[in-house]
Amino acid sequence: MIEHAGTVAHCPIDTSRIELAALNTITYGLYVVTARDAERRNGLVVNTVVQVAGEPCQLSVSINKASLTHEMVLKGGAFAVSVLERDTPLEFIGRFGFRAGRSYDKFEKTRYHDGATGCPLLDEHTLAHVEARVRTAVDCGSHTTFIADVVASAKIKDGEPLTYAYYHQVKGGKTGKGAPTYGMDMTKCRTEQRKGDRE
Amino acid sequence: MIEHAGTVAHCPIDTSRIELAALNTITYGLYVVTARDAERRNGLVVNTVVQVAGEPCQLSVSINKASLTHEMVLKGGAFAVSVLERDTPLEFIGRFGFRAGRSYDKFEKTRYHDGATGCPLLDEHTLAHVEARVRTAVDCGSHTTFIADVVASAKIKDGEPLTYAYYHQVKGGKTGKGAPTYGMDMTKCRTEQRKGDRE
Repeated sequence: MIEHAGTVAHCPIDTSRIELAALNTITYGLYVVTARDAERRNGLVVNTVVQVAGEPCQLSVSINKASLTHEMVLKGGAFAVSVLERDTPLEFIGRFGFRAGRSYDKFEKTRYHDGATGCPLLDEHTLAHVEARVRTAVDCGSHTTFIADVVASAKIKDGEPLTYAYYHQVKGGKTGKGAPTYGMDMTKCRTEQRKGDRE
Repeated sequence: MIEHAGTVAHCPIDTSRIELAALNTITYGLYVVTARDAERRNGLVVNTVVQVAGEPCQLSVSINKASLTHEMVLKGGAFAVSVLERDTPLEFIGRFGFRAGRSYDKFEKTRYHDGATGCPLLDEHTLAHVEARVRTAVDCGSHTTFIADVVASAKIKDGEPLTYAYYHQVKGGKTGKGAPTYGMDMTKCRTEQRKGDRE
């Protein structure tokens, strides 16, 4: 079991100084992060994957603490990322993004194979797979940020990745309650960006 | 001075299992991260900003250890992010991305003002500002990943953010030697994505 780092107190915050629309200008992709505990496989949709170092090659991902995937990553110390393609149907995103893995087997109707870490890799709507082993888990309150060594990766097919902006603006997708950006006014962001498009 | 967490050994890597084109499918924006040490202000271009938690609101950013900005963030414990707009000129990006702050004052010809943390906030080509105080600094080899409480943020103007893909594909921008993604074949990625556009 991986221990949390970063449990020092947060600094005092005056929330009146924080404008959420500013945070909405940060650019993200959309990914399914998967993990495994024995024969139980689970995964969830996140927007928080980033390559944080090249030497050695490392990835970070932030995962909501209440999720089953979080529990599995802490226990097993590994996760896999499937990079979603732009044309991924909302139904597919919903299966991984809006249903709780504790009461529903997300992999029952999903095509996948197990990777080098044993974590499942999606065989649908996926441009690339990346597998990683956790080195550090930082306690971030609602979420844990996992920083991990990349141990395997493969490009599956050409195409545009699904971005968080495209998901909201074009597909009309919603933000899950477990996302770091939950509660932000993406509609406002959307209106402003559309206006920007016309200018 | 902030101490590094996450100094445990990396796991053994078989680099033949890592295909860099897979990592190129991750989506990023482009940002100038700034810091300050007394009257010395500095900043650099990064693609690694992400909101990692909502409660409390936290940001992470990965910064190359060799940079002056890295030294200042470790010493001062705070940084600011200026979110670049899509039409930011390459010359402006070059000023912050391809010159070393140790031998050149990047702020001499830049319009800015100091924020709540004392870090400089850009007044040019910027959609939003976010300021943060570091809680945890994770040692990632070539880079440090800073995880920080958001203490102030403001939307400056409407518009599309500059994405890393747009910077490479449309503007023909290059990857800095200090980036986590340095050495990756962005040209290959570009060709494939253009092909995707035509399909």
